[in-house]
Amino acid sequence: MKILALSGGIGGAKLALGLSHVLPAGALSVIANTGDDFTHLGLRISPDIDTLCYTLGGLDNPVLGWGRADESWAFMETLGALGGETWFRLGDRDLALHVWRTAQLAAGATLSAVTASVAARFGIASAILPMSDDPVATRVATTEGTLDFQEYFVHRQCRPVVRGLEFAGAAQARIAPGAQAALAAPDLAAIVICPSNPFISIDPILAVPGLRAALRAAPAPVIAVSPLIGGKAVKGPTAKMMQEMGMTVDAAAVAAHYGDLLDGFVLDSADAATRIPGVASIAAPTLMTGLAEKIALARAVLDFAAGLRA
Amino acid sequence: MKILALSGGIGGAKLALGLSHVLPAGALSVIANTGDDFTHLGLRISPDIDTLCYTLGGLDNPVLGWGRADESWAFMETLGALGGETWFRLGDRDLALHVWRTAQLAAGATLSAVTASVAARFGIASAILPMSDDPVATRVATTEGTLDFQEYFVHRQCRPVVRGLEFAGAAQARIAPGAQAALAAPDLAAIVICPSNPFISIDPILAVPGLRAALRAAPAPVIAVSPLIGGKAVKGPTAKMMQEMGMTVDAAAVAAHYGDLLDGFVLDSADAATRIPGVASIAAPTLMTGLAEKIALARAVLDFAAGLRA
Repeated sequence: MKILALSGGIGGAKLALGLSHVLPAGALSVIANTGDDFTHLGLRISPDIDTLCYTLGGLDNPVLGWGRADESWAFMETLGALGGETWFRLGDRDLALHVWRTAQLAAGATLSAVTASVAARFGIASAILPMSDDPVATRVATTEGTLDFQEYFVHRQCRPVVRGLEFAGAAQARIAPGAQAALAAPDLAAIVICPSNPFISIDPILAVPGLRAALRAAPAPVIAVSPLIGGKAVKGPTAKMMQEMGMTVDAAAVAAHYGDLLDGFVLDSADAATRIPGVASIAAPTLMTGLAEKIALARAVLDFAAGLRA
Repeated sequence: MKILALSGGIGGAKLALGLSHVLPAGALSVIANTGDDFTHLGLRISPDIDTLCYTLGGLDNPVLGWGRADESWAFMETLGALGGETWFRLGDRDLALHVWRTAQLAAGATLSAVTASVAARFGIASAILPMSDDPVATRVATTEGTLDFQEYFVHRQCRPVVRGLEFAGAAQARIAPGAQAALAAPDLAAIVICPSNPFISIDPILAVPGLRAALRAAPAPVIAVSPLIGGKAVKGPTAKMMQEMGMTVDAAAVAAHYGDLLDGFVLDSADAATRIPGVASIAAPTLMTGLAEKIALARAVLDFAAGLRA
């Protein structure tokens, strides 16, 4: 029995970690958003893949919420002294992953192959699968013009007012073979859309031609977990974006955004009173502060899926 | 009054540091060998320029003899854990220079411009001038085949038996504008060939078309400092190479190698008895263990030059 998750960075990686603890080794596959990927200082950086690798490899930094726990900053400090850009923080150890990935990609390896090799080195039993090996670049249409994703997200700290999202290259991108195989796995028991930002973490995945259809075609139930708690985002700009794009900021609007893709929807216990029309739903604690909470949410989602299959 | 030095890495940088202490700020220009430059892990590395920058910037590591004193190795350790190549040691702070240079070169900057910017950031008053902004790659013909320079020098630790050297790209390389201007400076009082390896540090500089002629045409005396002490190299493969290439391993052979380029030759006090035919010579202590010794040798060389000018 296989479980497939769709994930962005932090919030998604937390649920993926919970799922990996509940499931037998190798049962979990995670399709990762690569729309945030960018080239910075000549280095190919895949923030969501990195967060998944660090989180599932037990190397993540729970204080920062990104990067590695055992990190040092000599590189960044020296780069600043040389006059280099320091708005995107690259730790000494994190940097090794980017330099290594960049060198491997330059040598002709696919992002899928590099990611699999890194995950193996980190001792990760789950499969971390880029949505595509082709470039897809999320761009944010704002009232201040269209911005590259990291310019909006990190450099401008999500301050510009969002009008919409574009996924440059998505129309030409092919689903990566690993993701394709995971979507078509005959023993797939559930597809979980993690509590990631729907617009910048999940929509880029869904924008890859054929991916949405593959989700619909899969016999396994598709269940999304709400990224909102009490109408607010745990972290990141989900609620702010919804407001700026004229949406009601609640779990029902998230469910409606995914629409007929969903067979089930998990909203936070704080939002239990919110009616989710047209789709089966349950409420569960989704904050996932510690490992126990991640595992509990994973169990709730898998139980929900089992009920939907029955 | 200007002084121009030709230098490779460690030994040359030591004399350059001595000269920089003796001369007024801005009087020293150093033409640096770039034949050792290579691309590793996608990073553009210029070992001799880096050593000059670190040494003249007071950042050098006197224990290792390369790299920075305030170095850490988190990047290298993590790269090794990922399965990356670790034979060329890149410290966390050193790495910032390579990443920054690579990004600047990719953006269209010349090596000369990047080097000048780095030197300025390090507070270096002397000019560090790449011999050329065009690629020149030293290759080592050995009994085990022709090897890329760093493969021979670092990876194989100079073990293969040398038959000769090639400077790929040299015939097409142009003297960098900064080096050209330094060679043609009207107030040039001396040209110092530092006690670097003649074959792998100085010959690549001399292989750039027009550079040898510019040295001969300069009215300033050209003085070489022997890299041998008592017929041995202080560090590095100079003596081993001379032996393998069938040369007598002594200061006279070094002077003969430079031939009619020289107006003067400085040999170590230990070799004072060695006759240097056809060129004025003095003996002086050349070991340069501390700053005082570097300054003393710089003074001896400059006094010698003044005598040759008179």
